[in-house]
Amino acid sequence: MKYLEDLVPGTVSRFGNKLVTREEVIDFAARYDPQPFHLDDAAAAKTYFGRLSASGWHTCAMLMRMMVDNMARDGHAGLGSPGLDELRWLKPVYPGDTLRVESVLDEVRPSRSKPDMGSVHSTVTVFNQHDEPVMRMKSIGLVRRRPGGDQ
Amino acid sequence: MKYLEDLVPGTVSRFGNKLVTREEVIDFAARYDPQPFHLDDAAAAKTYFGRLSASGWHTCAMLMRMMVDNMARDGHAGLGSPGLDELRWLKPVYPGDTLRVESVLDEVRPSRSKPDMGSVHSTVTVFNQHDEPVMRMKSIGLVRRRPGGDQ
Repeated sequence: MKYLEDLVPGTVSRFGNKLVTREEVIDFAARYDPQPFHLDDAAAAKTYFGRLSASGWHTCAMLMRMMVDNMARDGHAGLGSPGLDELRWLKPVYPGDTLRVESVLDEVRPSRSKPDMGSVHSTVTVFNQHDEPVMRMKSIGLVRRRPGGDQ
Repeated sequence: MKYLEDLVPGTVSRFGNKLVTREEVIDFAARYDPQPFHLDDAAAAKTYFGRLSASGWHTCAMLMRMMVDNMARDGHAGLGSPGLDELRWLKPVYPGDTLRVESVLDEVRPSRSKPDMGSVHSTVTVFNQHDEPVMRMKSIGLVRRRPGGDQ
């Protein structure tokens, strides 16, 4: 199990290998973001997107799945998240794309009010198979401190 | 159809009425955020969440659906979004909650580089049925300018 004390600023983590399928793009959009450019090729062709593209929130959801799978592999003592800053959708995500993640650990802060946890601040970028960044955000995670002291 | 010129800073929009079902919470979490507190009552009872709660990304997705439905009613000329700032998950969202949205239009900025569009900056808050804010973010939307000039 990794605790707050085990996390080192500057560490770069690379993980994820998610094929974006047309079926999943349309399924997510139909439930949560039914704008024409996420549902229909002809409608998307008239817009900036050019062709059917994934909802930005779908890209967030796919990123989260890659992060959870990576945390499970790594054994992080994750306690959830208070939020995030500066999320930017940089390029469209299309059916057929394969996504991966690079996460840079910017800062580790022990909590002042809660002695058993701290927050981890990272810059998280999602790339497509052309190594183009498609989404970037500043994420904040809460992580447990090592039980039993400051060592 | 509403264009950039029709949007007035200070305007408050209230919309949405989304019942969060246990089935949907588990379905979303199983696909995109399979952490124990989003999947299982017993595991959630040991955490800050207290009981099974929705993924924060699920709350984002439900917000987006309420925003898209509201834009469709309003006839906004929406062109997508470059991203958002300062997203905060303030309280857990539980199965059985009913969510609604309050959006305050903070600023309308015509684009310097693209004469046919501008950006709309809003503070968007999701409330539960107890009028408690459960999520807040600064959203950015791109909106078409009225065709045919500055009038």
